[in-house]
Amino acid sequence: MDRTLLIQELEKKLGQEKVISDKVDLMYYSYDSSFHARLNRFMPDVVVTPRSTEEVSEVMKLAYTHNIPVTPRGAGTGETCGSVAIQGGIVMDLSPWDTIEEVDVANMQVFVRPGVIHAKLNQRLAENGMFFPPDPGSSLMCTIGGMVANNASGLRAVKYGCTEQYILGLEVVLPNGEIIITGGMQSRAVKSVSGLNLTKLFVGSEGILGVITQIRLRVWPKPKGRGIVMAVYPSLDDAPASVLEVYKAGILPSGIEILDQSAIQAVNMYRAEINLPNAEAILLFEVDGNPASVEWEGLKIKEIASQRATQVEWATDPKRMADLWEGRSVVATAAARVRPDGSRVFAGEDISVPLSKVAETLREIRALGKKHHIKVVNYGHIGDGNVHTAPVIDPEQPQEVEAAQRLVDDIHRLAVRLGGTTTGEHGVGAVRAMYAELEHGAAVKIMRSIKQTLDPKGIMNPGKVFGPEEE
Amino acid sequence: MDRTLLIQELEKKLGQEKVISDKVDLMYYSYDSSFHARLNRFMPDVVVTPRSTEEVSEVMKLAYTHNIPVTPRGAGTGETCGSVAIQGGIVMDLSPWDTIEEVDVANMQVFVRPGVIHAKLNQRLAENGMFFPPDPGSSLMCTIGGMVANNASGLRAVKYGCTEQYILGLEVVLPNGEIIITGGMQSRAVKSVSGLNLTKLFVGSEGILGVITQIRLRVWPKPKGRGIVMAVYPSLDDAPASVLEVYKAGILPSGIEILDQSAIQAVNMYRAEINLPNAEAILLFEVDGNPASVEWEGLKIKEIASQRATQVEWATDPKRMADLWEGRSVVATAAARVRPDGSRVFAGEDISVPLSKVAETLREIRALGKKHHIKVVNYGHIGDGNVHTAPVIDPEQPQEVEAAQRLVDDIHRLAVRLGGTTTGEHGVGAVRAMYAELEHGAAVKIMRSIKQTLDPKGIMNPGKVFGPEEE
Repeated sequence: MDRTLLIQELEKKLGQEKVISDKVDLMYYSYDSSFHARLNRFMPDVVVTPRSTEEVSEVMKLAYTHNIPVTPRGAGTGETCGSVAIQGGIVMDLSPWDTIEEVDVANMQVFVRPGVIHAKLNQRLAENGMFFPPDPGSSLMCTIGGMVANNASGLRAVKYGCTEQYILGLEVVLPNGEIIITGGMQSRAVKSVSGLNLTKLFVGSEGILGVITQIRLRVWPKPKGRGIVMAVYPSLDDAPASVLEVYKAGILPSGIEILDQSAIQAVNMYRAEINLPNAEAILLFEVDGNPASVEWEGLKIKEIASQRATQVEWATDPKRMADLWEGRSVVATAAARVRPDGSRVFAGEDISVPLSKVAETLREIRALGKKHHIKVVNYGHIGDGNVHTAPVIDPEQPQEVEAAQRLVDDIHRLAVRLGGTTTGEHGVGAVRAMYAELEHGAAVKIMRSIKQTLDPKGIMNPGKVFGPEEE
Repeated sequence: MDRTLLIQELEKKLGQEKVISDKVDLMYYSYDSSFHARLNRFMPDVVVTPRSTEEVSEVMKLAYTHNIPVTPRGAGTGETCGSVAIQGGIVMDLSPWDTIEEVDVANMQVFVRPGVIHAKLNQRLAENGMFFPPDPGSSLMCTIGGMVANNASGLRAVKYGCTEQYILGLEVVLPNGEIIITGGMQSRAVKSVSGLNLTKLFVGSEGILGVITQIRLRVWPKPKGRGIVMAVYPSLDDAPASVLEVYKAGILPSGIEILDQSAIQAVNMYRAEINLPNAEAILLFEVDGNPASVEWEGLKIKEIASQRATQVEWATDPKRMADLWEGRSVVATAAARVRPDGSRVFAGEDISVPLSKVAETLREIRALGKKHHIKVVNYGHIGDGNVHTAPVIDPEQPQEVEAAQRLVDDIHRLAVRLGGTTTGEHGVGAVRAMYAELEHGAAVKIMRSIKQTLDPKGIMNPGKVFGPEEE
């Protein structure tokens, strides 16, 4: 279909104000937060901003009839090119559709449209003593729709799991424009085993199976208390060992974060006044729950960590907790400053490995950095093995860019070799699609066949998750 | 394929000792724990007991080539005819294949074959201070494979969720005999968002998509403490109101059970010495965690419940906890004794409704019992709205059987009408397949198309979950 005609048709269906076709405006949709999008811009032909399920359905019907790719998009905070139209066509921007349709306090659930911002939802829920536990770093910007599409999580996943755990049902517009509701058409049950679990199939499907237009979320009672233990380790292997000892004591902290030597140095270089102790690793254990539980678990973790750590501190005072947490808070920003002309590469940034391989992984990444002559900063959610790696380069130097790409490929393959995954929480998108067979083998054929069944024309977010079938 | 030839072929592939064809032995496989199977026996043509993935694959290849139905089966404790070969063919009994392949303590996960018994797994895990939280009532008999196939749960689902929450990956033999591994071929990561989530699609798919031959389970630190609050309510509406007030206080108990008036009477009739207070409802709150947390939450729940309850008791002493729990322990058995010639109907036994509709549901079920002249006993997991209903009849009286079937149909429709589901944890099987469209509407078409994609010949456990497509 001719672009001009497509724009006209869309304007007829949605009204001019919901169709963006000006080239300057489209630029904003040509990238996300990934390194791949920094190197390559992908201009959509047109952007639409539907505000109802019917409007989404109308757009899909048109696209389906004319074989036009459609890429759903939330806030664009992703790091995988997942919401970027790498094959052109229509970008469907769902971020303006940010209605909290209902907070059903009596049934501990909430109905939201895809554009609702994570932090705003939790602000609203807090008024009723409830919360939606997953907590991505991009909380202030990212949308619930994007979180569902990517099965997002964050530092509290170790205790609270990922987004999927809270999704009770979805309204989805299929590639051909049909509308389905998963989890029961009229259901407000919080537990059901009726039917194939389509809900969980759509969660994390990164927009390749349909467009999510409403989300029914289970929420939880918000814990009243919180505390932090900081522990400083002389050897890298002591850090995961300490984590395991905490688990064995019957404690599942709400977060367990690691800063390795590279991250400690980056933080101290960025803000000398934070003055983290020079060590092989620092762990931050966060516990939450009722005040008595927090106190008990905090002291117990302190006792356990003290067997290996050279320095341990336990705090529940908000000011002191913020101080202890400060190194972790700034590390993502600090990473980019490890060299004056440096810029952080958002790629290979999200591997997850078994806890027993975390120390080996961090050592191997250090060695890979040396091999490729690239400074690398590591931190992350050690509790579930999710390592965030920040290579820092001068992106104006083509040979550094190339070296970074080789490094990132090595990191992805390292993760799989050590029994991990190329992505713990950020998703596959376009940038990790080539590892699908490496990670999943024959299962990829089944993923492809499900995609083919739901999207026979291949118009939904093409080129993502596993790319086109190899001939 | 001729039955005699089929048996010969299977014996050639597996050896005689893994093929059961004697009619008397086959009887054992003609039913499960459902009322439907009590009324109708479904004889398989042959039963196989494979003990390796390759053997399962060989059976599937043969069945696929000759269009023979295959019904996977665990311990047969299900209440839905899910593991019964309602169209004949091969029953694949996986219960003898009960190897715990590996307890990977360092990575908080375990690899098991489908026949491992739930209680045995938790016994083994306890040696390492770990546990697999879902806790079906049939723990001493049911298999992990069956739990995965049915996404089983139990009274602790309100805090710990269902089986699916703990499944990291599966080895599955597809209908055509191909073998796939979901969740990453070599993965021991506890968090991954790589690829479509096939794992969660297979969990709860009740054997209609393939045969699960290995399960990679995440396990959790086992909490050290436990306590019980018993609260007696003068009005039915006070019970769910009290539950909500506990949630709002920031507490998520590990279990919240209800006995309504019918259950209280049944218990007292069965064992007068238990002597439950005569009331509209009794709630049992179970809390677990570290000892300090248990104490704090128990006292808090006691305080909250006291605002509505006429009698409240809080206990952590094991003997006293067992006393308080005794009514709940015996209620399933007690239900059948509410009339001397009575027998419990295991049908309509597993609806789940929104918490805000629990009181209305229990009143409506009482009214339905009167309408159909059937005694009905109600209890269940009020925390997630999962009501277990026990109609009691004389199954020798055909008119009572017919009345029970009408009652059960009414109960299923009531659940859907009140925003609930026909099954909270037991599954659909053959007995609730007719409600698929009522509950899921257009989504059933997508379920069917996924089934068709994975099982084009329709040989995997036919007639379950949603039955054949209507013309």
